[in-house]
Amino acid sequence: MSEALRTDLYQLTMMQAYWKSGHNPEATFDYFVRKIPFGQYLVTAGLNYVLDYIESLRFEDDDIEYLQSQGFDEDFLKHLRDFRFTGDILAMPEGSIAFPLEPMIRVTAPIMEAQLVETYLLNKMNFSTLIATKASRVVYAARGRSIAEFGLRRAQGDGHLEATRATYIGGCDSTSNVLAGKIHGIPVSGTMAHSFVTSFDHEIDSYRAYAEAFPKRCFLLIDTYNSIEGAKKAVIVGKELEKRGEKLLGVRLDSGDLAELSKEVRRLLDDGGLKYVKIVASGDLNEWKIDEMMKKGAKIDMFGVGTELVTGRPTPALDGIYKLSDVVEQGKHMPKMKLSDDPVKATLPGKKSVWRIVEKGKFVRDVISLEEEDVDNAIPILEKVVEKGRIVCNRPSLEKIRQRTGENLSNLPDIYRKLDSAAVYPVEFSRELVALRERVIEKIRREELS
Amino acid sequence: MSEALRTDLYQLTMMQAYWKSGHNPEATFDYFVRKIPFGQYLVTAGLNYVLDYIESLRFEDDDIEYLQSQGFDEDFLKHLRDFRFTGDILAMPEGSIAFPLEPMIRVTAPIMEAQLVETYLLNKMNFSTLIATKASRVVYAARGRSIAEFGLRRAQGDGHLEATRATYIGGCDSTSNVLAGKIHGIPVSGTMAHSFVTSFDHEIDSYRAYAEAFPKRCFLLIDTYNSIEGAKKAVIVGKELEKRGEKLLGVRLDSGDLAELSKEVRRLLDDGGLKYVKIVASGDLNEWKIDEMMKKGAKIDMFGVGTELVTGRPTPALDGIYKLSDVVEQGKHMPKMKLSDDPVKATLPGKKSVWRIVEKGKFVRDVISLEEEDVDNAIPILEKVVEKGRIVCNRPSLEKIRQRTGENLSNLPDIYRKLDSAAVYPVEFSRELVALRERVIEKIRREELS
Repeated sequence: MSEALRTDLYQLTMMQAYWKSGHNPEATFDYFVRKIPFGQYLVTAGLNYVLDYIESLRFEDDDIEYLQSQGFDEDFLKHLRDFRFTGDILAMPEGSIAFPLEPMIRVTAPIMEAQLVETYLLNKMNFSTLIATKASRVVYAARGRSIAEFGLRRAQGDGHLEATRATYIGGCDSTSNVLAGKIHGIPVSGTMAHSFVTSFDHEIDSYRAYAEAFPKRCFLLIDTYNSIEGAKKAVIVGKELEKRGEKLLGVRLDSGDLAELSKEVRRLLDDGGLKYVKIVASGDLNEWKIDEMMKKGAKIDMFGVGTELVTGRPTPALDGIYKLSDVVEQGKHMPKMKLSDDPVKATLPGKKSVWRIVEKGKFVRDVISLEEEDVDNAIPILEKVVEKGRIVCNRPSLEKIRQRTGENLSNLPDIYRKLDSAAVYPVEFSRELVALRERVIEKIRREELS
Repeated sequence: MSEALRTDLYQLTMMQAYWKSGHNPEATFDYFVRKIPFGQYLVTAGLNYVLDYIESLRFEDDDIEYLQSQGFDEDFLKHLRDFRFTGDILAMPEGSIAFPLEPMIRVTAPIMEAQLVETYLLNKMNFSTLIATKASRVVYAARGRSIAEFGLRRAQGDGHLEATRATYIGGCDSTSNVLAGKIHGIPVSGTMAHSFVTSFDHEIDSYRAYAEAFPKRCFLLIDTYNSIEGAKKAVIVGKELEKRGEKLLGVRLDSGDLAELSKEVRRLLDDGGLKYVKIVASGDLNEWKIDEMMKKGAKIDMFGVGTELVTGRPTPALDGIYKLSDVVEQGKHMPKMKLSDDPVKATLPGKKSVWRIVEKGKFVRDVISLEEEDVDNAIPILEKVVEKGRIVCNRPSLEKIRQRTGENLSNLPDIYRKLDSAAVYPVEFSRELVALRERVIEKIRREELS
């Protein structure tokens, strides 16, 4: 199946209108967010999908047939048969830290091409960036304890694969999602379900059956009937494993007061001589609940986090947008912006760069400038990833991306990382950008609103 | 790609443990929710995916290879090569109305099989049911005005196709998602983007170019610079279209006070002799905002709804679960339940049926009973959909499912449909079910907790 129709209808109707009117100037679009759903920063993710898409974007026969059935112009459809993306793209690599209004991706191409790719780009970048950001917060809250992503059953349908990949980029350690393990090489983890326990006559029979099947990686779920009673039985089975020269790896709590229970269970395990047995906790967790448990001194070694992590709850969408900033007409740059009745919906005109000032390894502030400007002692953070339709960047492995995220996050001062941070990272506009913006607003006022 | 690994790792480890211990009894699992995320009812959706999955479920060579790399038992993997689902499934058809604790799907199969399918079933049913339910609320709020789903760019990645299908089941009229149009035959709709307007030297040039390309389905976006000025230009282009024997179809508002603007724009259009031109409104809409606009007398003919509709915001996941209720051991039914430290997490034991009492065409109350019971003057609402691994039900078209949803919703008394309804639809347990539950709790207390 080609990806060409994974777009909004209006991209195609606008393309036909551009094509019919002979108006197909080189255009530049910026992908950015106006506000961040949780916290003070974003971890960018999803670029890998966009690059694959750009490289393979074609309209197949059945796509053309469908568009015929929707009344598109025959000559326009002929043109679509030869469609290729021929433009340039700059982007922050996956695992970058981004802030509001900064272009995370900048697309320059004939406007028909730049327009078509909008929807796919937004769909992929918005979701992966949302989830990588959420994951980084969950990881932060866990203070070095391991995070296993358990969200497949509550993920938004087939979005689960992208979600799992993004949680790994954001710093999670493993997933329950076997397909994500197979496709992306993410470590897989899991324990057992309540049904496994209840399907046996007695809880301890289920533990013994599991220990027999997986003597080397046995995790026992202890809350099916009562967590303390379950822990006592786990100690029995743990000692039985010891006699066979094996070790019980862990027990899982899934309900009740997890922090308190973890302390009692830790005591039971320790008293039983099973100091090495880990405690896993799960059950509608999020960064706030984990933070609270850690503050209460919970004896939890690993958190299984599902729903909230893979859906970004309570804010399941990143408000990322893709806005026209420049058009070249007769060799001349015409900077563009949306003004709108809503001041917050206005955009930044012109082809832009993003710079980061780093001091002693820590991010200090960013500057958005016009492309032709230089910012002293600053690192440009957009890289060329596509040139004339061809991918020109490295395609780092998922491990490398995850590592880069970790490095970037460690360079972000802690005041911006705290879960409840109200500290806004400084993003400045260059003087030239501010001046250009004023000129464009003036022109719109003069020509459109009088 | 086979779907077999689209599951949680623990399903496969439990399968191996069942297999190794020779414990593979016939088991029954119920799919149900404990609470409803918004409103008082659910519109069920997603069964179509589950049936396709059940029918085609196989482990391919590369799946087996991956599991080998994860240390699964060789003999067990040999067994997986011949894996087929051989059980029975009862389900509410798509487009049914369901309430908390009612089994929407009941799976009976050897426990290894019933366990494996859990994750896929939950992933598909939870998401589609969530979105169909959300859509039905947005449609309700719009009081007969048309709803176009515009959510692809903010949908959770590849989940967008399932989202769009579910919004159509829930009563939306069209989608911007071209791929969903092609695959599911859902009507597609769209207007134009701000970038189309700003890419031209003047707003009115963009309107003329679009009217030229789509004289028969021309919608103009009027809020790029100022909605009232945009509307005045739309009137000019509308009159130009009239001279060519065509008609402007509509204008779209995307920012500002949509209710107030719609009244002003309606006046401008009417005064310009364009009474037939429709007004479309969009911009972070949801059921509550639409309801408020309708109460204010907004002159809006169609709402474009995106993010909140396709993500279920603010509750992006349905808390649907799949719980063991019965195991057959040596020909004897052993009813099962989870007790838990958390009373709300307890489950209902035994193989169950769901009945609906309907009076004068309106739903009055439901009863959950044991399978062998009969409920007088009630309609059983679970249908057999799979028997011995084969699909035995009709596979209605999407149009038929959407129609059924509409009929069901019109039979649900309005007190349960109101957006802020606090009226809880009565779902009763039969006397036998209550008695069974008490016996099972007693048995667990005796055997596991003393």
